[in-house]
Amino acid sequence: MNIDPAAHSDADNYKLLTNLVVPRPIAWVTTRAETGIVNLAPYSFFNAVSSDPPCVVVSIGKRADGTPKDTAANILANREFVVNLVTEDLMGAMNVSAADFPADQSEVSAAQLALAASLRIQVPRLADAQVSLECRLFQSLEIGSNTLVVGEIVMFHVADTLVGPRLHIEGFAPVGRLGSPSLYCRTNERFELPRILYAEWQRGRRDAG
Amino acid sequence: MNIDPAAHSDADNYKLLTNLVVPRPIAWVTTRAETGIVNLAPYSFFNAVSSDPPCVVVSIGKRADGTPKDTAANILANREFVVNLVTEDLMGAMNVSAADFPADQSEVSAAQLALAASLRIQVPRLADAQVSLECRLFQSLEIGSNTLVVGEIVMFHVADTLVGPRLHIEGFAPVGRLGSPSLYCRTNERFELPRILYAEWQRGRRDAG
Repeated sequence: MNIDPAAHSDADNYKLLTNLVVPRPIAWVTTRAETGIVNLAPYSFFNAVSSDPPCVVVSIGKRADGTPKDTAANILANREFVVNLVTEDLMGAMNVSAADFPADQSEVSAAQLALAASLRIQVPRLADAQVSLECRLFQSLEIGSNTLVVGEIVMFHVADTLVGPRLHIEGFAPVGRLGSPSLYCRTNERFELPRILYAEWQRGRRDAG
Repeated sequence: MNIDPAAHSDADNYKLLTNLVVPRPIAWVTTRAETGIVNLAPYSFFNAVSSDPPCVVVSIGKRADGTPKDTAANILANREFVVNLVTEDLMGAMNVSAADFPADQSEVSAAQLALAASLRIQVPRLADAQVSLECRLFQSLEIGSNTLVVGEIVMFHVADTLVGPRLHIEGFAPVGRLGSPSLYCRTNERFELPRILYAEWQRGRRDAG
């Protein structure tokens, strides 16, 4: 079936996108307002985009009335944010933080979470998260009605229990986001498919022929 | 544990990023070279970023020798690409297409895949994919040694069997990318967590108090 986005509403295209581009990692973002209030909200238009320097992108939509969400406003104002990752034990708290709180109320206390100071930036991270990435704004880009922020990671925080020799990560299984409005997947069942080299592929083809 | 990316190699930071920012959706990208050869390669620095217009980003690294990969070179040259999504039945073919083929050899035939003409662009899609997104280059951005391409989706292709009334998508379960070099997750086991509203949260707190 061919579906022309120009023939459909923004809501339809959003529904298609979020059901087709899956599974999405979840950035649970802390930012700080000028008032000092720490804002917290989850975003799944999120991914790594570069390792040198290590960068992530988060794309933040507008509110229904067209004004920027607190997360975007705060990042553009002080150029700092923390991406916390969401494991299954934190899903309930994440869901509270996704509610439409007014700007003068912190989702952090509403979700009964604790903050910990960051090392390189003023915005705190979530003490309860197994993984947090301190980010400085590298660049921002307006894409339609979204603000895409590119953040350079200036410090990784990883729970000690997850880190083995030579920075090997073991046992980290954050949830993934599927279709809207509220489907998720687990990542603790994994399977491996080793990469192949062109030379190996050629050899295999010769052997088969 | 605090890990300072400035104190680690690009390879270490890449390993951390790809093990921590999970699960990632996979863009299996077709592009066309000036010679007419259709290139195919998977990228997991990929996500949706906007619905109005519907846009995705794909971040493409350089080759080991610092030159652009065919995918990036082709997109920057003719401003078109198709993002095909990868379901489990296509994993073997995806893995072949990820090998380091020379530019004059198409991964499509090597992986024994068939192409189908796109409707709005010259670059063909994979006939075997359940979902393909025809994209026109919206913008590109150099981030460190990566090229981030923002593509506007100009046509969605979705297998008929996946589309219900009012564009409801049912039964689409592409694989997700986990840590490097070769871990994946399935998305066919799902769970639901309905969104809550601030008003509901307030009411719950009053009732509890």
